[in-house]
Amino acid sequence: MNTYTSQPRWLDEHEQMVWREYLRASRLLEAALDRDLQAHGLQLSEYEILSVLSEQPDRRLRMSVIADLVVQSRSRLTHTAGRLENRGWVRREACAMDKRGVELVLTDTGFAEITRMAPAHVESVRANLLDHLSREDLLAFGRAVAAVSQGILSTGVCDEVRAAEQLHAAGTAR
Amino acid sequence: MNTYTSQPRWLDEHEQMVWREYLRASRLLEAALDRDLQAHGLQLSEYEILSVLSEQPDRRLRMSVIADLVVQSRSRLTHTAGRLENRGWVRREACAMDKRGVELVLTDTGFAEITRMAPAHVESVRANLLDHLSREDLLAFGRAVAAVSQGILSTGVCDEVRAAEQLHAAGTAR
Repeated sequence: MNTYTSQPRWLDEHEQMVWREYLRASRLLEAALDRDLQAHGLQLSEYEILSVLSEQPDRRLRMSVIADLVVQSRSRLTHTAGRLENRGWVRREACAMDKRGVELVLTDTGFAEITRMAPAHVESVRANLLDHLSREDLLAFGRAVAAVSQGILSTGVCDEVRAAEQLHAAGTAR
Repeated sequence: MNTYTSQPRWLDEHEQMVWREYLRASRLLEAALDRDLQAHGLQLSEYEILSVLSEQPDRRLRMSVIADLVVQSRSRLTHTAGRLENRGWVRREACAMDKRGVELVLTDTGFAEITRMAPAHVESVRANLLDHLSREDLLAFGRAVAAVSQGILSTGVCDEVRAAEQLHAAGTAR
């Protein structure tokens, strides 16, 4: 970051437009996908967790790995996992290899539920995102978001977020 | 939505890639911007509210209008407004024209705070989003997200979300 200049580099007209349109589109998309999942009593962030588990051969993953994959804080993930556990869709288990680690396991019920929800969710992703973009625009959009992900990951922000969380958690535990 | 076909239109390889990259980028970006605002004890969703208020000539807006602008549910906005009110940055007032309506007003303290935060926030938007895109990619990205917003708004999903919220609120009040 350009911390040492005294003059802020304000956004020009195009940058301002893109930033605002992005923010609005991302909020609208999340709300629309949440709305469509509401019939199953789920939010998108919960669906994502079931989805990554369902793609593992043994349907289990360490909590820390899930947190990285779905970019949720550990504390938020713990809450979400608790809600899914209450429904019987996942269960928490100590890692076989490392007793300090915790794994989340997709139950047979959870797997049946996500299998049942998937067709409607895919239609929702089409109706709210993909159908609004030509193939050319879709690919340009894909390249842009991939560049943003890579750019953010390369700055090590995720490590800093984790460190901040741990500090926060230590503060709360006191 | 294609509700009447029995065969789901699963995503092809490119669509899958774009959808996942988008989801990841949007989560990473929100986390990075939140992290940078953390120094001020704010989240991006709180900053957005102060920002829209600061752009009004009289620094006030109806809650319902803010909820639409920043795409937050009324209940979430009420919580956020409460937190900002506790800090003395906003206050709630009955609408002069319509006593049933509630307006949010940015206080002088709130205005001073957002003026102080804005340069760092703009740098954060640059460092985490804009700097990762060439001007050409930025404009293509802008067109894509604008098409998504327009597409979602044209389906009336926002009205449905509001209706669902009101039903939910009525259910909770019972």
